[in-house]
Amino acid sequence: MSDGTALTAKDVPGTVLSIDAMGGDLGPSAVVAGMATAAAKNPALRFILHGNRPELERLVDKRRDLADRCEIRHAEGVVTMDAKPSLVVRQGKDTSMWSCIEAVRAGEAGAAVSCGNTGALMALSMMRLRKIEGVNRPAIACLWPSRNPKGFNVMLDVGADIRADAGDLLQYALMGASYARNGLDLARPRVGLLNVGTEEHKGRAELKLAAELIERVSAAADFEFVGFVEGSDLPSAKADVIVTDGFTGNVALKTGEGTARLIRDLLEEAFRYSPLSRIAAVLAYTSLRRLSKRIDPRRVNGGVFLGLNGTVVKSHGSADATGVAAAIKLAARLAAAGFSERLAARIAHAEQAAAAAMQTEAGQA
Amino acid sequence: MSDGTALTAKDVPGTVLSIDAMGGDLGPSAVVAGMATAAAKNPALRFILHGNRPELERLVDKRRDLADRCEIRHAEGVVTMDAKPSLVVRQGKDTSMWSCIEAVRAGEAGAAVSCGNTGALMALSMMRLRKIEGVNRPAIACLWPSRNPKGFNVMLDVGADIRADAGDLLQYALMGASYARNGLDLARPRVGLLNVGTEEHKGRAELKLAAELIERVSAAADFEFVGFVEGSDLPSAKADVIVTDGFTGNVALKTGEGTARLIRDLLEEAFRYSPLSRIAAVLAYTSLRRLSKRIDPRRVNGGVFLGLNGTVVKSHGSADATGVAAAIKLAARLAAAGFSERLAARIAHAEQAAAAAMQTEAGQA
Repeated sequence: MSDGTALTAKDVPGTVLSIDAMGGDLGPSAVVAGMATAAAKNPALRFILHGNRPELERLVDKRRDLADRCEIRHAEGVVTMDAKPSLVVRQGKDTSMWSCIEAVRAGEAGAAVSCGNTGALMALSMMRLRKIEGVNRPAIACLWPSRNPKGFNVMLDVGADIRADAGDLLQYALMGASYARNGLDLARPRVGLLNVGTEEHKGRAELKLAAELIERVSAAADFEFVGFVEGSDLPSAKADVIVTDGFTGNVALKTGEGTARLIRDLLEEAFRYSPLSRIAAVLAYTSLRRLSKRIDPRRVNGGVFLGLNGTVVKSHGSADATGVAAAIKLAARLAAAGFSERLAARIAHAEQAAAAAMQTEAGQA
Repeated sequence: MSDGTALTAKDVPGTVLSIDAMGGDLGPSAVVAGMATAAAKNPALRFILHGNRPELERLVDKRRDLADRCEIRHAEGVVTMDAKPSLVVRQGKDTSMWSCIEAVRAGEAGAAVSCGNTGALMALSMMRLRKIEGVNRPAIACLWPSRNPKGFNVMLDVGADIRADAGDLLQYALMGASYARNGLDLARPRVGLLNVGTEEHKGRAELKLAAELIERVSAAADFEFVGFVEGSDLPSAKADVIVTDGFTGNVALKTGEGTARLIRDLLEEAFRYSPLSRIAAVLAYTSLRRLSKRIDPRRVNGGVFLGLNGTVVKSHGSADATGVAAAIKLAARLAAAGFSERLAARIAHAEQAAAAAMQTEAGQA
C-alpha cells in the first residue's frame, strides 16, 4: 500500500527493510521488481520505500506481492553515482538515501538496502548510525562463490576504506567471523589473512603484525586463524573469512567478477559456434543453468557494511531485479538474526578478552 | 645432445635459451618435456640446460626433438621453493638457477626460463644482470586473457616488489608499453592504472600523482594513457597494459586464476551431472576445448622480469609440460625481438623526454 500508513518493526510482526529506490543504474523499476521477487518468497517481509512518491506509487501498485506491505516515503533528491560523499553528508538531507538510512537509525527498519553511490552510502551510514563502540574503521564484506560446503566465503574489506593498519585488520577478522556466523551459519569460522605468499617472511610489515594480533584473539573470539592465504584461495575451501584492506579487496572482488563474466561470455560464444555445439547447449541446458546460477554475481549481490549501529546492505549499482532480490534476501536474514546487536556484543567481548590477554602477558613478563 | 659442446648465441644461428631444469614442483622431467614440445614447433630453438647432469642426460636422450639442440651444464645445488632470496644470493653459486642466469649475463643465451622460487630468481637476476640504467624497481609482467583482439592484456607488477611509489608506477607504464609492443605486436599500446574507481577523486594519493606523470610522458613514449581502470577491466578491451604495485597485482593475478579454475571445475561437474549432460559434453567437445584453451592459465604461463639487462621468464612453479612450453615460446619471442635492448633504449628515450618536458614547463612557468 502506498497511503503512508506506517509499517514499522515495532507494530508489525515480521521483518521490515528500508529500501532506497533511487540512485541505481537501472532506476526504481528494477528495485521495485526485486522487492516483489523477494516479497513473493518471504511473506514476513515488509518495506519502507524511499524516493519519488508518484513514480514509486505507480510501480508498487502494479505489483500484487507488494500490496499492503510497502510504505512509501517521498524524497525529492537523488544521490548520483558521481556525487562526492563529503557533499552528500552536508547537503543530502532531502535524498532518498538519507531517508533510507534514517529509518534504520530510528529503529523503524531492521536493515537498509541501497543500489546507490557506495562512498556516499558509507559516509551517510557512518554519520547517522555511528560506529560500534570499539570499531575504528567500518568495512564492507561480500560473499564469494567458493568450494566450501556453504558455497561461499566472506571477504572484507572490499572498499569501505583504501587503507587498513594491523589493528584495523584485527577488527575486520572479528567482524568477518561474526558475519560468517550469522550470515553463513558457521559456528567456528576459519579466518585467513590475504597476502602475496603463505610463507611467514613474505608480505608487508603490517600484515605480519596483524597475523600475530589475530592469532592472539582467535580462541577468545571463537574462530580459527588459518594464517596467510593467497588470491587463489579466495574461491577455495581453505578459509571461510578472508581479511584484507579495502583497496586490495576491491581490486580482487572486481577481478573475480570480471573473470567470471569473461568466461561466461566465451562459454556462450562456444555454444553458439556450430550447429553441433548449439544442440549440445540444448542438451546441457539444465546443467549449465545450475552452473550459471552458482557463479552468477547477481546471486551473491550485496556488500554488508560492518561495524555500524545498524545493518546496511549495498547492492551493485547495476543490479537488476534478480540482484536486488538477492540483496534484500541477505538484508532480511541479517535483520531477522539481530546481526548488528550480536556483532556489537562480539566486538565488546573481544576487546575485553584482548585486554585481559595483554594483562596476563604483562603479568607474566 | 648432452656431450657438453657449447651452443651459444654467437656461433649458432637461431635463438638460444637458458633453462633452469630444477626447482619446479614437478621436477626436471616436466621442464624437459616442455622443451621438447617447444622445440618441435620451433626448429630455430637451441637450449642450454642447467641442473643435475646424469638426470638431465637421461631425460634429454629420450627426446628426439632435443637431439643436438641442447647443451647440459651441471649444477650441484637446487634453489628450493622456501629458500630465502637473500641467502640464495650469498650462497647459491652452485645452483642451477645461478648457472641459468649466468648464461644470459655472459651473452650465451638470449633469455632465461626458470620454474623456481620467484623471490630468489628475481634477487639473483637483479644481482647478476643488473638493473637497466634509469630503472629503480624491476617488475614482473604477466599476460592476462582478455577481450582484446590479441586475446591478452599485459599486467605489471605481479610480484617483484610489494611496494611502488608514483615514480615506480611511471616506469612500470614505460616498461609495460614496451613489452606490449614486442610481446603482443601493438604499435601504440593503451595503458591503464589500476585503482578502486575510475573517478579522479578516488584512490590513494600516489595513484593520482602517478596518473599525472604517466599522462605527461605518454606522447613521447608512444603509448596512450586511458586513465584509471578497475579490477573488472583486467580481462576487458579497455587497456592493453595495466599498471599496479606488486602486492595488488599478485593478489589480482592469483584471484583471476583461482576464479577461472573454480569455474572450470564446476563446468566439468555440470557436464558429468546427468546422462543427457554427458552426451552434451561429447557434442560440445571441440567448442569447449577451444574455450578451455583460451582461458587455460598454462597457455599464458610466463611472468617476464622487466627492467634488467637481460630477459628472464618466470614459469609457474607448478607448470607441467604445456606450461613450460608456453613460457619457452614467450622467452623465444622476446629473445628473437632483442627485447631487453629495445626496452633499455625506450627507458633512456623516455627519461630524456620527461626531462625535456619538465624543462619546458619550468621555462613557461
